[in-house]
Amino acid sequence: MSFRYEIRLSGAGGQGLLLAGKIIAEAAAIYDGKLATQAQSYGPEARGGASKSEVVISDEDIDYPVASNLDLLLALTQESVDAYVQDVKPGGIVLVDSGLVADVPEGDHRVVSLPIAETAREEVGKGATANLVAVGIIARLSNVVASSAIESAIRARVPRGTEESNLKAFRVGYALAGEPAGGESS
Amino acid sequence: MSFRYEIRLSGAGGQGLLLAGKIIAEAAAIYDGKLATQAQSYGPEARGGASKSEVVISDEDIDYPVASNLDLLLALTQESVDAYVQDVKPGGIVLVDSGLVADVPEGDHRVVSLPIAETAREEVGKGATANLVAVGIIARLSNVVASSAIESAIRARVPRGTEESNLKAFRVGYALAGEPAGGESS
Repeated sequence: MSFRYEIRLSGAGGQGLLLAGKIIAEAAAIYDGKLATQAQSYGPEARGGASKSEVVISDEDIDYPVASNLDLLLALTQESVDAYVQDVKPGGIVLVDSGLVADVPEGDHRVVSLPIAETAREEVGKGATANLVAVGIIARLSNVVASSAIESAIRARVPRGTEESNLKAFRVGYALAGEPAGGESS
Repeated sequence: MSFRYEIRLSGAGGQGLLLAGKIIAEAAAIYDGKLATQAQSYGPEARGGASKSEVVISDEDIDYPVASNLDLLLALTQESVDAYVQDVKPGGIVLVDSGLVADVPEGDHRVVSLPIAETAREEVGKGATANLVAVGIIARLSNVVASSAIESAIRARVPRGTEESNLKAFRVGYALAGEPAGGESS
């Protein structure tokens, strides 16, 4: 039975979303036996403004690497959720940072609102790991890539010397997504 | 007048082609006022085998980031030129490493065969900069992104401490592509 899972990571430049996308794609393909594509668009806004990274994971060759019918949208800014919520498929997941996104447009999707940046600052002690907190949440919510595979990809890909804080961020995010309250609404 | 320019960088894992693609895309979009997409596929072979990175550059929004009608193919292995030469558009450029690719299939394309890896070793003194030598050659042959923009992207993107050797590699490649002999045939 073939599957295709589409993720879009969106927010502002400097939030580490390209690295997050690369880690998920490499985890799926190199460490978890699936196939994956990762794509990003660059425009003048990439100079520190909007940022968007797309990952498609499948168990067969991916001819079309564009994520246009999203299983999961991560939005770290109000602008990005407003721009992209329409691309989430019915029943898909809209994951937002509860401290940065005040208002998620209604629709046939599951909203998960969690304090991503705050968790990176408070629990990991390093705000720059918010992207890996998000990867941890996504790993748990999507359940398409083994968390051990993602840990392998993190070790291989993050800058030397930051492995432990990034792994911690991933694990904290994974745990956060599993808490009963979960910050969910739909 | 709108334009679309498609580049595929292909070879083996570890040749730095993803970084090369990212540099070209960021140079075009962030430093040269164009739009660009960059995409890669990951499969089990990404564990050190084949590698492929695609860049599309345009002066308008790019809805379809797949490069399937190539203006320029870089092939650093015999396997990659054999696999992808069919995707080069009529009159497109096939750039190969003369030390690594013995045989370029004939067709309606311009073949440019240059000693990319050897130049990195001999003239830059660092074999790992072959990807940037290739970027320099591509910059000159394609003429779609200003070389000053590529130099800015190199400074911003390569690992700290490697800026100068990578810039040297880029400039050496740019000069190599402009030499009268040029290693060309068609």
